[in-house]
Amino acid sequence: MSSSKTLRKLEVVSPVPADIDIANSVEPLHISKIADELNLSSDHYDPYGKYKAKVLLSVIDELKGSKDGYYVVVGGITPTPLGEGKSTTTVGLCQALGAYLDKKVMTCLRQPSQGPTFGIKGGAAGGGYSQVIPMDEFNLHMTGDIHAITAANNLLAAAIDTRMFHESSQSDKALLNRLCPPNKEGKRTFADIMLRRLNKLGISKSIPGDLTPQEIKKLVRLDIDPESITWRRVMDVNDRFLRKITVGQGPEEKGMTRETGFDIAVASEIMAVLALTTSLSDMRERLGKMVIGNSKAGDPITADDLGVGGALTVLMKDAINPTLMQTLEGTPVLVHAGPFANIAHGNSSIVADKIALKLVGPGGFVVTEAGFGADIGTEKFMNIKCRYSGLTPQCAVIVATIRALKMHGGGPEVVAGKPLDRAYLTENVALVEAGCVNLARHITNTKAYGVNVVVAVNMFSTDTEAEMTAVRNAAMAAGAFDAVVCSHHAHGGKGAVELGIAVQKACENVTQPMKFLYPLEFSIKEKIEAIAKSYGASGVKYSEQAEKQIEMYSKQGFSGLPICMAKTQYSFSDVASQKGSPTGFELPIRDVKASIGAGFIYPLVGTMSTMPGLPTRPCFFDIDVDTTTGRVLGLS
Amino acid sequence: MSSSKTLRKLEVVSPVPADIDIANSVEPLHISKIADELNLSSDHYDPYGKYKAKVLLSVIDELKGSKDGYYVVVGGITPTPLGEGKSTTTVGLCQALGAYLDKKVMTCLRQPSQGPTFGIKGGAAGGGYSQVIPMDEFNLHMTGDIHAITAANNLLAAAIDTRMFHESSQSDKALLNRLCPPNKEGKRTFADIMLRRLNKLGISKSIPGDLTPQEIKKLVRLDIDPESITWRRVMDVNDRFLRKITVGQGPEEKGMTRETGFDIAVASEIMAVLALTTSLSDMRERLGKMVIGNSKAGDPITADDLGVGGALTVLMKDAINPTLMQTLEGTPVLVHAGPFANIAHGNSSIVADKIALKLVGPGGFVVTEAGFGADIGTEKFMNIKCRYSGLTPQCAVIVATIRALKMHGGGPEVVAGKPLDRAYLTENVALVEAGCVNLARHITNTKAYGVNVVVAVNMFSTDTEAEMTAVRNAAMAAGAFDAVVCSHHAHGGKGAVELGIAVQKACENVTQPMKFLYPLEFSIKEKIEAIAKSYGASGVKYSEQAEKQIEMYSKQGFSGLPICMAKTQYSFSDVASQKGSPTGFELPIRDVKASIGAGFIYPLVGTMSTMPGLPTRPCFFDIDVDTTTGRVLGLS
Repeated sequence: MSSSKTLRKLEVVSPVPADIDIANSVEPLHISKIADELNLSSDHYDPYGKYKAKVLLSVIDELKGSKDGYYVVVGGITPTPLGEGKSTTTVGLCQALGAYLDKKVMTCLRQPSQGPTFGIKGGAAGGGYSQVIPMDEFNLHMTGDIHAITAANNLLAAAIDTRMFHESSQSDKALLNRLCPPNKEGKRTFADIMLRRLNKLGISKSIPGDLTPQEIKKLVRLDIDPESITWRRVMDVNDRFLRKITVGQGPEEKGMTRETGFDIAVASEIMAVLALTTSLSDMRERLGKMVIGNSKAGDPITADDLGVGGALTVLMKDAINPTLMQTLEGTPVLVHAGPFANIAHGNSSIVADKIALKLVGPGGFVVTEAGFGADIGTEKFMNIKCRYSGLTPQCAVIVATIRALKMHGGGPEVVAGKPLDRAYLTENVALVEAGCVNLARHITNTKAYGVNVVVAVNMFSTDTEAEMTAVRNAAMAAGAFDAVVCSHHAHGGKGAVELGIAVQKACENVTQPMKFLYPLEFSIKEKIEAIAKSYGASGVKYSEQAEKQIEMYSKQGFSGLPICMAKTQYSFSDVASQKGSPTGFELPIRDVKASIGAGFIYPLVGTMSTMPGLPTRPCFFDIDVDTTTGRVLGLS
Repeated sequence: MSSSKTLRKLEVVSPVPADIDIANSVEPLHISKIADELNLSSDHYDPYGKYKAKVLLSVIDELKGSKDGYYVVVGGITPTPLGEGKSTTTVGLCQALGAYLDKKVMTCLRQPSQGPTFGIKGGAAGGGYSQVIPMDEFNLHMTGDIHAITAANNLLAAAIDTRMFHESSQSDKALLNRLCPPNKEGKRTFADIMLRRLNKLGISKSIPGDLTPQEIKKLVRLDIDPESITWRRVMDVNDRFLRKITVGQGPEEKGMTRETGFDIAVASEIMAVLALTTSLSDMRERLGKMVIGNSKAGDPITADDLGVGGALTVLMKDAINPTLMQTLEGTPVLVHAGPFANIAHGNSSIVADKIALKLVGPGGFVVTEAGFGADIGTEKFMNIKCRYSGLTPQCAVIVATIRALKMHGGGPEVVAGKPLDRAYLTENVALVEAGCVNLARHITNTKAYGVNVVVAVNMFSTDTEAEMTAVRNAAMAAGAFDAVVCSHHAHGGKGAVELGIAVQKACENVTQPMKFLYPLEFSIKEKIEAIAKSYGASGVKYSEQAEKQIEMYSKQGFSGLPICMAKTQYSFSDVASQKGSPTGFELPIRDVKASIGAGFIYPLVGTMSTMPGLPTRPCFFDIDVDTTTGRVLGLS
């Protein structure tokens, strides 16, 4: 059917084998073949081994004149703790579009965090017959982007503590002399990055010797308030003992101890910057303006104030290029960035989507996934990611499962690791129908952005025809463009052909312009309240700390940023156990933080863990290398 | 002269421009061209971008039948704090052999630590017209090996604290049930890695249910003594505030706080393992047997006891392949591993040297560099690296400078960052002659291994003919095979042609078999004393702590390992200010530690810093990206 040389259709086996066995049963194509099929010449990408390549950002500029393809975002209903197969559906849909419907298609996925791969969860490459391969390369190291983020994040952290240390023992004059050493001609000069700070301070002098004592103090003494520092160190390892630590206890650090902690690497603001940046120069500016805390006078202190914004960009200059991989059926995938979906916006990168849209061209499809349920992932996709990218989606897919709908209809609690209750394994149409209120609100909310909504029912073997009909009816009644059942987990692309056709029609029949949920001109509180209303809240209550922070960010001039709500994904409300479509609750805002470089304010609804731990028996017990073949064993 | 398509001769400029300007003035060849020239097919290597490739370990097996080339190690005299150009000489010699003498040649270098690149020191790619390019890719990230080490090191660290945490709150039975969960058929089984521990414990049962309560306790309760833990976390950043920290202060860690710290990543034992391993299966075993501390009963606890040896190997499986790069004159370079030269052995990897020796073949040359002065670097090259590799060098180069020899002859102190004293800039043959005692002892010591010694005088513009003649005469009197002056910094390979010819003759005229300084059967103390004697010491004095450790390692069965002395590089003795050729001193051993997986015991002569800091004005102030060209600025 397809004219492509790279696409292949799968021979599927039933029951579906383990993910790793399916992944290992298919020999991936050399990445140059995948690139050829996209008309990428060898100047457009850098291979990283046989099955991965970094596509260079310059492709965007080169294809500036050509038109974009259709842009599809995949969200989900409020999930159970088991996950409802959003990544798998994203991959399966693309396998259908590419291998069965003869469309140009690219999948844009987030890079998974490496740490959890050795803890409880397995990989994040999809599942069953809808996966990205090679699965081990996808889950481990990939092309080093997260390692680059770790290095950059921690260089900034070291710069903060060291600067406080050196400021504590030196006079203004000594600091100036050290910061502006004489050049070969014996003249003291400002480094370019110091000129940025001078400019910010409103000092327009270009020779250190011309500064007044007051100006010297302003320039050289950042006077960081240790209590205000929000920048933490990161590591891509589940290391719970680093959640809260005291640093600086060595004798040479002269008693300058400080309480701080580590987050997992993907929680770094630099990951959010990578996901939201639009070009190398934009990334340079965002990295430079990341705020690490305040001066004792209350002024925000940035990476550029510390002199390190350029070095961070150098560390990130290859990471800005997305990684090309492939699905089991040989369709192309761009993997890039994987920010948290609560304290950050949980979407893959803007630049990957932009490149993909040019590469598939008019009539082609780019399918990108938004983390968590649509209340969070799709909302942030629209109001943060699309706002910064200027891109307009035509279709939003909402993935639903009979299991999750039954839970929303009042089914017993679903707990990871415990056997599912009978209610989930036998037909119960009434439970499904009752649960569709959750789906309906996701549909209404998503439609409001001006996109067509297609519901994808990710079918399990225990689901019945009557249950699926109930979902379809409810979805159409709630305003979905279409609702289709799909079985890509069991059948690969073939199982999502109907979904592919529905998505195509949805893209071709957009009737409304895109609309955001709130204008940026709204105050921080107005924006928070607009989002809370979309959750069904009757109002918002702010803690004292939240009020203080909102006031501070407003005073510092950051109130024009979009809002990134850090809320549980397990309910529309702040209480994970409130299933279905709760209303009338007051959304509590415990605290408000900001990622100024990435470009959003994030209110905290509850407590978010940013460093996972390891269980008594982590998955690493099963992981090893077959030293004869070099193959990875035990990765799930 | 050469038939090669990749070699090019340089157009040199005088005075020599900045390193980065020279590096940027040459367009590197595509790495596939360098690989072609080595007869590597595309199956033999994985490209990482345009200018780097990982050469796959399988090349060793494929070329098992073919003969090795000549093996040359480059060491140096006791250096000044400015360094005497050992890397530069290593690169320059290879440029001469390849581009001017028409020899097959490969340079084997260590990968530099990324952290210091942003601190005080610049890169480590050589200098002047003898460099590895692209310089920024060499110094930053490269192909991710150090990042892989960081990830593996820290996964092990997390496994230690988490295991202690879970053991503290669970019964033996609960631990067993969690460690051996039921499989799909409902039967409890041991993971393969637990069978390793059972085997070590002498328990030959294969079903968890068959264990006696005593056996369960032995298996599941590692009972780690927190005070005995030697495994620290690492980071490739100069972060002095992490030298000593307290972890576990979060409320969920229930008061299990512990003092520990971070080292810079290259100080990880995993780096030493990478440098000393000989195959994937050997690496698997070494990583598994790394000792992290003792049980409360005094038994060594390993990574495999924690269940994580396989996962560490998975994280390191690509890092085991050396990275192919090129010199300014297009000769091939293998960059691989960069262990500390004090607490580890300071040499690049065995596998890189092995691959290189096969690739150049008979009549070809592999030139590898040993860190620090020859008293440390070359000694460890011979007694640790060659012992594990089974390889035999034919020639050892000793790099000397007039500057360092004058210092050894009694010249004023040389301090980095301060202008050189007049003594170093004007002719003073007597000072040079007096300093040659240092060179002479390095020659005698190195010759004792059965290699021919060639002295390379790395010429500076202020050196005079008479001074250089003095060095040559002293070197020949001390038993050098030859001593030649070279100017590769100013002239590239052309400046080291005479050195290349001398090295070739030295390799072709070996008359003695290789000899180690000590047999492994010696006791730990006998081995320490043999090395101390080579320094000129009259004896060794051990601290109480050192005695205790030697006793412990001997009892644990580790006394058969080679010794890796952690001593200053600035003197043959333990006192950095004792220049020349001191004798009659007692070498103090403050403490004794071990890297059991890597395979050596390391006595500490003095205190070694394993985490550098950042100065008031780190080099990062100058580093940025030209966002138009993507080029790195300010890296030195």
